[in-house]
Amino acid sequence: MKYLSFSVDGRDTFGVVTDRGVVDLGGTFASLKDVLVSGVQVDQDRADHSLDEITFLPPIADPVHIWCLALNYVEHHDEVQAAGRVQELPKQPALFARSRDSLTGHGQPLRHPGVSEQFDYEGELAVVIGKPGFRIGQDAAFDHIAGYTIMNEGSVRDWQFHTRQITPGKNFYRSGSIGPWIVPRDEVGDVDALRITTRLNGQVMQDDVAASMVHKIPRFIEYVSSIAPLHTGDILATGTPSGVGFSRKPPVFLQVGDVCEVSVEGIGVLRNRVQGD
Amino acid sequence: MKYLSFSVDGRDTFGVVTDRGVVDLGGTFASLKDVLVSGVQVDQDRADHSLDEITFLPPIADPVHIWCLALNYVEHHDEVQAAGRVQELPKQPALFARSRDSLTGHGQPLRHPGVSEQFDYEGELAVVIGKPGFRIGQDAAFDHIAGYTIMNEGSVRDWQFHTRQITPGKNFYRSGSIGPWIVPRDEVGDVDALRITTRLNGQVMQDDVAASMVHKIPRFIEYVSSIAPLHTGDILATGTPSGVGFSRKPPVFLQVGDVCEVSVEGIGVLRNRVQGD
Repeated sequence: MKYLSFSVDGRDTFGVVTDRGVVDLGGTFASLKDVLVSGVQVDQDRADHSLDEITFLPPIADPVHIWCLALNYVEHHDEVQAAGRVQELPKQPALFARSRDSLTGHGQPLRHPGVSEQFDYEGELAVVIGKPGFRIGQDAAFDHIAGYTIMNEGSVRDWQFHTRQITPGKNFYRSGSIGPWIVPRDEVGDVDALRITTRLNGQVMQDDVAASMVHKIPRFIEYVSSIAPLHTGDILATGTPSGVGFSRKPPVFLQVGDVCEVSVEGIGVLRNRVQGD
Repeated sequence: MKYLSFSVDGRDTFGVVTDRGVVDLGGTFASLKDVLVSGVQVDQDRADHSLDEITFLPPIADPVHIWCLALNYVEHHDEVQAAGRVQELPKQPALFARSRDSLTGHGQPLRHPGVSEQFDYEGELAVVIGKPGFRIGQDAAFDHIAGYTIMNEGSVRDWQFHTRQITPGKNFYRSGSIGPWIVPRDEVGDVDALRITTRLNGQVMQDDVAASMVHKIPRFIEYVSSIAPLHTGDILATGTPSGVGFSRKPPVFLQVGDVCEVSVEGIGVLRNRVQGD
């Protein structure tokens, strides 16, 4: 099953992907969050729309929280350290937040911020919360996951390093993307084995497995849910592997017209073209 | 005029304070954001509720953005530097985000996070956006302000310093507060002259004027609106003056039962008691 949000005929709605196309659940459920909580059975022969007539939206329109981790892959930490930007591997999750308007959907333009020449990609595995919870222990963490999606956690490097707080460079309007859809947890096997690959104009730039995370998903859920309750539809972006553009020699930054693809095995491919602002 | 959100008889609504009490505008407008945009005339002799029968809510229930600044008063920067936590005065605004569930309303309990002994107050002047905008120049910045309110930007110091990202310590569930109401911009005189005072159990802990900000409000608006559009109801917390608890010798941290009051001249007093979690 793949859960998604989309617009069609000028209307925003949500549903599931079937063998034949897309089934619209907008008339049956109040929101995709409700679908995540209750689950749904859909006939695979049914389709209300074809995949090529819809416009993908971020799967969750209005998450209460979009929590992200910096420096959560060992080799990525090493490359950032080599660039003189951090000292030691964070003993605790290096948490920051993205606003929902910083992300666009699959197939939509990634917006190049005109104020910077240092626009960079970050391919990531993202967790979508199903069952709400507060102070969730690591043992129970997976029970709170509805499924997984993909994020391009697009980053504006000079603005990220204005001060020690990376928040500015992580929140540019539609500088990142999420989707194309949510694959339910029970259809994803061993999460550690998931391979995250980022391609820029077809060339592999990042390629690692989720097992290389410093703070694994149960620890991430334990940490953020110690701070505030997790709500259905909350997004947890688990950090990016090594190979980002700014730590390359010479650096590689996104240019208008570039095509960025983040793939996660068993989930899909999140594809966006960079557009001038 | 004072705009506010509140619950009464188990129902969440919003309105304005009059000479006689509170006028409920929930039947007339869709949200307080709509009131901020259109403005409203209300007979000062009218009242639907008395002030003591309502429960104050955060004035804006669902801001798209709650942007906050760290280290935005010179003397506060100096005390944090003396505590060994920062080097130089930030040349750019040190931006971070709070989630809406990290804030409670005036008169409601501030939630002491059980996981920390280092819960601290931060009294602040907060800006509420009226007219939406993107890439707003400093000259036009005040045109986008609907009014002003008060924030206690409650902070959990050890979690704030887990890594360089202060986000975790700034987002504990209902660890901060906002309100009691929004006073329209045209009823507030010279913003620089506004005096921000924080009292802990009646004792003055912070006391400075908005003129002491490092990055003034027009610069803050210019900076964040370069990143993403500002929406009606967005909140900009302008940083805290010196006198926070953790940089005192010995440090002063909030204890269950403490009463914290943040007052801003011409706006009001935001009062909360600390409650165990």
